[in-house]
Amino acid sequence: MNHNQYTSKLLEKAVGEFAKLPGIGRKTALRLVLHLLKQPSEEVELFTESIRVMQSEIHHCSICHNISDQKVCSICSNSSRNKRILCVVENIRDVMAIEATRQFNGLYHVLGGIISPMDGIGPSDLTIRSLIDRCSSGAVDEIILGLSATMEGDTTNFYIYRKLADMEIKITTLARGVAIGDDLEYTDEITLGRSIMNRTLFNTSLKN
Amino acid sequence: MNHNQYTSKLLEKAVGEFAKLPGIGRKTALRLVLHLLKQPSEEVELFTESIRVMQSEIHHCSICHNISDQKVCSICSNSSRNKRILCVVENIRDVMAIEATRQFNGLYHVLGGIISPMDGIGPSDLTIRSLIDRCSSGAVDEIILGLSATMEGDTTNFYIYRKLADMEIKITTLARGVAIGDDLEYTDEITLGRSIMNRTLFNTSLKN
Repeated sequence: MNHNQYTSKLLEKAVGEFAKLPGIGRKTALRLVLHLLKQPSEEVELFTESIRVMQSEIHHCSICHNISDQKVCSICSNSSRNKRILCVVENIRDVMAIEATRQFNGLYHVLGGIISPMDGIGPSDLTIRSLIDRCSSGAVDEIILGLSATMEGDTTNFYIYRKLADMEIKITTLARGVAIGDDLEYTDEITLGRSIMNRTLFNTSLKN
Repeated sequence: MNHNQYTSKLLEKAVGEFAKLPGIGRKTALRLVLHLLKQPSEEVELFTESIRVMQSEIHHCSICHNISDQKVCSICSNSSRNKRILCVVENIRDVMAIEATRQFNGLYHVLGGIISPMDGIGPSDLTIRSLIDRCSSGAVDEIILGLSATMEGDTTNFYIYRKLADMEIKITTLARGVAIGDDLEYTDEITLGRSIMNRTLFNTSLKN
């Protein structure tokens, strides 16, 4: 669909803005914009206002760098959580994914990305300095490295590992293996190989 | 993913607003909102402003009801187009789809929907009255019914046909048949049957 088919510059501009969003093409953008156009103006006001307010008022937690409405997020300020275990994750969506499992009662540390020379992201662009500060105070017993199992994730894991190696902190990483419900024949060789190498006692695996 | 995993009410609200858009679930909404959150505030301002301005300033063309920045849209005001042929379509996306073919040089009439008793949409909710007015002035030679080949589309076609039957206007409809590039064996029986019934002279079909 060509640009100059738009009979309205205002419409075209709004479609262009929507199409800048990740995963939204111009056809989807048009569908979304025409939907908004049909809504009463109060509804559209709610939509734009929620984005504007969020952008201007949202904080990052001063401890774990998670997104928060307060200076300290609800996880860090929760007194029933174990403050001596930190799970290091890439972004807030990872926090939400782990929280959804209800299996982790420690705190988080949100890096804000992973080391990726290809994208020009180095250690100083992430919150690694702040992680080291949290650890060096002696307030932490264990760090769980919860980054993706990619080359960038591994690089970042290794970088953090070296920075923390001198401290008396247990450093663990998420178990890699065959996903629950997955057929062995469709599992890639590296995952399957690693899941054989790191096999667990049958009793242990039934615990949860 | 559960609602109460959000560590920020502002974030949750923005995600909720995005998730109201058609075809956008909460996971996609979160991805879009986090993307906006990472943009500089001027970018987000451009985004919200384009929607706000569009909503408050866009017009519907007073002749064909297409979306337009002026009182009369760029198609209706284009003096090189044939004003004696109208193509009746459901919405502005259909206008754009037909314009993209570059095969139609007439004007449009945008109904704003189709007759659908199930959704509570009757003839008076559409711009049919205005279509009749355009036709009764004697300024129109041909009406092309360009609605979808669904029961609602056929109902609407028939309703319009009856309203215009007394006027000296040629009423045509889009050709239905096997789509270009489609295998016959995968074409549904009704389409295939209709394309045999309405077969065209071989010479004619090569014209375009």
